[in-house]
Amino acid sequence: MSGLERARAFAPASVGNVAVGFDLLGHVIDGPGDTVTASRTRQPGVTISAIDGLDLELPLEASRNTAGRAVQALAEHCRVDFGIALGIHKGIPLGSGLGGSAASATAALVAANALLDQPLPTHALYPFALTGEAVASGSAHGDNVGPQLLGGLVLATADRLLELPVPNGLIACVVHPDHIVETRAARAALGEPYPIATVVAHQACLAQFLCGCYRDDIKLIAAGLKDLLVEPRRAPLVPGFQAVKQAALDHGALGSSISGAGPSVFGWFIDQAQAHQAARAMQAAFAEHGLDSQAWISPVNSPGARLIHDTESRD
Amino acid sequence: MSGLERARAFAPASVGNVAVGFDLLGHVIDGPGDTVTASRTRQPGVTISAIDGLDLELPLEASRNTAGRAVQALAEHCRVDFGIALGIHKGIPLGSGLGGSAASATAALVAANALLDQPLPTHALYPFALTGEAVASGSAHGDNVGPQLLGGLVLATADRLLELPVPNGLIACVVHPDHIVETRAARAALGEPYPIATVVAHQACLAQFLCGCYRDDIKLIAAGLKDLLVEPRRAPLVPGFQAVKQAALDHGALGSSISGAGPSVFGWFIDQAQAHQAARAMQAAFAEHGLDSQAWISPVNSPGARLIHDTESRD
Repeated sequence: MSGLERARAFAPASVGNVAVGFDLLGHVIDGPGDTVTASRTRQPGVTISAIDGLDLELPLEASRNTAGRAVQALAEHCRVDFGIALGIHKGIPLGSGLGGSAASATAALVAANALLDQPLPTHALYPFALTGEAVASGSAHGDNVGPQLLGGLVLATADRLLELPVPNGLIACVVHPDHIVETRAARAALGEPYPIATVVAHQACLAQFLCGCYRDDIKLIAAGLKDLLVEPRRAPLVPGFQAVKQAALDHGALGSSISGAGPSVFGWFIDQAQAHQAARAMQAAFAEHGLDSQAWISPVNSPGARLIHDTESRD
Repeated sequence: MSGLERARAFAPASVGNVAVGFDLLGHVIDGPGDTVTASRTRQPGVTISAIDGLDLELPLEASRNTAGRAVQALAEHCRVDFGIALGIHKGIPLGSGLGGSAASATAALVAANALLDQPLPTHALYPFALTGEAVASGSAHGDNVGPQLLGGLVLATADRLLELPVPNGLIACVVHPDHIVETRAARAALGEPYPIATVVAHQACLAQFLCGCYRDDIKLIAAGLKDLLVEPRRAPLVPGFQAVKQAALDHGALGSSISGAGPSVFGWFIDQAQAHQAARAMQAAFAEHGLDSQAWISPVNSPGARLIHDTESRD
């Protein structure tokens, strides 16, 4: 079998942390995403041929670009004997907390993988995605690339991805305000260490959340869908956060918290109509703090990255 | 329906924390246990009529005794119109890390519950068991009383008990050295707070452990059966701990750590013969540190507290 000459892939935005799983849990949304075209070139090495869409300030140097670095790692591992040029179309605003840099890496890997004579299974792309993610965030955490690769809700540890069962009909509402959270400030907020009592209380939430997923028990998920570690410290970085979260809870959210490093805020719902009402109320709360916003409503169990089949085979 | 005049119950020892679930996870062992006889008295109130067995220094004043306090809480809740006298036989050494004080509370509740005209379901005894446990430990954590009530491996949060699925044939080996860990020292060791990186690494273990239980995946359980929080700080309080743990791991343990506050050490195994070899090696390692010890080998999925049916009905 020989790989494609050119392939295009889409990777969806994702909600990182999912309140209770800092750096460990994430789920995709059926909403915005990044699209990457990978093309074989005679010249060896990985190049970024173009970046367009929402963010034009990203580095074109492959090793400093999340997509470029991820595909370099894949190409080295597979010892490819051709070059790969990447064209990146950003659909996810950077700095939104929706896994924008991760999505470029994920889409680039899925597209580049299709160029290989023997493409790897999707799971096997995870370490390369982590390598790419580390370029953008300085640390290799898989809570965005994990679900973007596999879809749905995923537990992502340093060396393992686990797809978690999600009750049917679970819906996420994600609201992205027009505001930038300084990554440095978001990290600095976590500098102070945590007393054992807080750690144990949070772990009780994590355990209940995971048991709730496996037992298909909405009440248990709601009992666990809380963030006692990160949210209390990062909330001040998101203008209006408490009001936005309260708006979600007032409209039936099982839980609500910051997506990734913010400023996006998400809630989980079991009722479609409530999710729509919540979205309006959450946007209104941001508006009261002077922020325009965009909202997406999506099943938690949405598909992950995939090839877009308008490509031609090499042969 | 009217309750019994007199009832006797047994509650088994338990492994608290189970490495990865400080104050949250525990499992019973089929080994030593405490036995409590509860008898109706005309005189209202709860009294401790006798304590015998391994520990004779326990308080006879009901409100200062874990069994007495637990039954007081049950009696108040159910507004019983008779008195209850408790006879406690200690089979679990106190200060062993095997849930000794919890077992007295659990056995007392199960026995006293049988005296009620309308006994509560076992689950419903949990808050009273926590009240009793708090007398001994100063804090209400359910990682011993939870599994002692329900049997097997249990997640015990402040207000909820969840039975966790355990792969068939999973075996615990528990070794109790003849040594006392000062509760105060065990608590003081946890005073220093934890950096977020340690918390996240530990939570990755907890998540893998729980997913491993639900997926019946031994490798995943082994990946998660680790304690990055408490064991590193309490290990110096258990003479020879590293050698004992290593002996368990050298004989095929999925994981090994301190049971409860120690000094008992446990390991989990999938092979009965390996568990027996490990027990001997763990005891030898304690012996090299000058400590005699006792060992028990038991299915993780062992039964919880139960009535011993040598009682007579009131009618």
